[in-house]
Amino acid sequence: MSTSSAPPSAKPPMRDALVAAAFRLFLERGYEQTTVDDIVALAGVGRRSFFRYFPSKEDVVFPDHESCLAEMTAFLAEGREEHEPVRRVCDAARLVLRMYAENPTFSVQRYRLTKEVPGLRAYELSVVWRYERALAGYLRRRFAGEPDGTLRADVVAAAVVAAHNNALRSWLRSDGRGDPGTAVDHALDHVQSAFGRPRTDRGAPQLPRAEGPEDVVVLVSRRDAPLWRVVQQLESALGRG
Amino acid sequence: MSTSSAPPSAKPPMRDALVAAAFRLFLERGYEQTTVDDIVALAGVGRRSFFRYFPSKEDVVFPDHESCLAEMTAFLAEGREEHEPVRRVCDAARLVLRMYAENPTFSVQRYRLTKEVPGLRAYELSVVWRYERALAGYLRRRFAGEPDGTLRADVVAAAVVAAHNNALRSWLRSDGRGDPGTAVDHALDHVQSAFGRPRTDRGAPQLPRAEGPEDVVVLVSRRDAPLWRVVQQLESALGRG
Repeated sequence: MSTSSAPPSAKPPMRDALVAAAFRLFLERGYEQTTVDDIVALAGVGRRSFFRYFPSKEDVVFPDHESCLAEMTAFLAEGREEHEPVRRVCDAARLVLRMYAENPTFSVQRYRLTKEVPGLRAYELSVVWRYERALAGYLRRRFAGEPDGTLRADVVAAAVVAAHNNALRSWLRSDGRGDPGTAVDHALDHVQSAFGRPRTDRGAPQLPRAEGPEDVVVLVSRRDAPLWRVVQQLESALGRG
Repeated sequence: MSTSSAPPSAKPPMRDALVAAAFRLFLERGYEQTTVDDIVALAGVGRRSFFRYFPSKEDVVFPDHESCLAEMTAFLAEGREEHEPVRRVCDAARLVLRMYAENPTFSVQRYRLTKEVPGLRAYELSVVWRYERALAGYLRRRFAGEPDGTLRADVVAAAVVAAHNNALRSWLRSDGRGDPGTAVDHALDHVQSAFGRPRTDRGAPQLPRAEGPEDVVVLVSRRDAPLWRVVQQLESALGRG
């Protein structure tokens, strides 16, 4: 959709200067009222330099998503058979959080801008969609051949993105105060416990375990108890709550 | 984002004629190569008539989403306390399916168009986002005051949309053959069983039941069994699988 033609490591100072100039103008005049010419004039570079790093004015608002998407894709590609799949996509989502948390001021400014400008909101939705498809693609490979594999992959990917964004947006709304990591971990644990396999499951998913603890859990439940409450009870009995 | 200024019931024949003319041209020449002038010329109406029904060329590709969103919003607003919340949002998602299933040929044409034109893809993402927020808004109200209420609302809404779209897209990729209802029901049941409260739970969510069956289920599980498998077993024991 929008790939920077320059590698991330090429002349980062000029790229950073363009982002800084753009955001200063967006905050002073508004996004719509700022042109690419205004940005390059303030940064002291030519138009061609701008378009070398950013295909459009929208892209300068999200300067780090392409590299974060590439990092996420690489992280998922490095996943091995013994990685529990849902945990792996939760960890991949944490890469996005890290990008936001590295620069709270910038992240909060962008959050406000994105809320105000419909075009940026649409751009952000397409970025989020690409993260979600990266996670779903990994899970589809991991769940290949299993019953409802693509369905489960799509549902888990969407749940991970929703949980991550729920915690991230709370942090952004609080003006980026404190560490968002705890809230994101809590949100992702929620998804992990709904869909994931336990951490101790080291073997291939469908094979019976050859060794391991043999202790059992006995759970007694009223037949009409809400399922979510039974699962809660079960998780706590299994020590995974 | 894009509201038709005319009420849905106003002069539908002209509105339908504009949609038909637009799709004939999109299929013949391509979306980008077709102008609003081309569309109104073929439909035999003036430009003002077009913009009376559709704010932009993109909107004519999705002529029924506004009314479907309005219908979904009304359906959710009519929800009562005794409606199990996750079931209610699954039923709300079925309204979207019905819109697609009512006109398979048109839905398949639009699906292909949307895959080819990035601008339409972005438009569709924003529509899907609005459906998801409608579902999440309802769930946030239903889960208000409960632990992790907004988190659970956002995660369930995303899961419902992902499950619905997984089944819907399979049907669209199959050129709209057969009835998509069964696949969508199966996909939504998957979400319902992961997050929903059982159908027999007629009372208010947090109140103990005053009456009802008192039989119990005893489940014995190895401590290292994958949680998803234990839940599967549990559901089947409870007769909710």
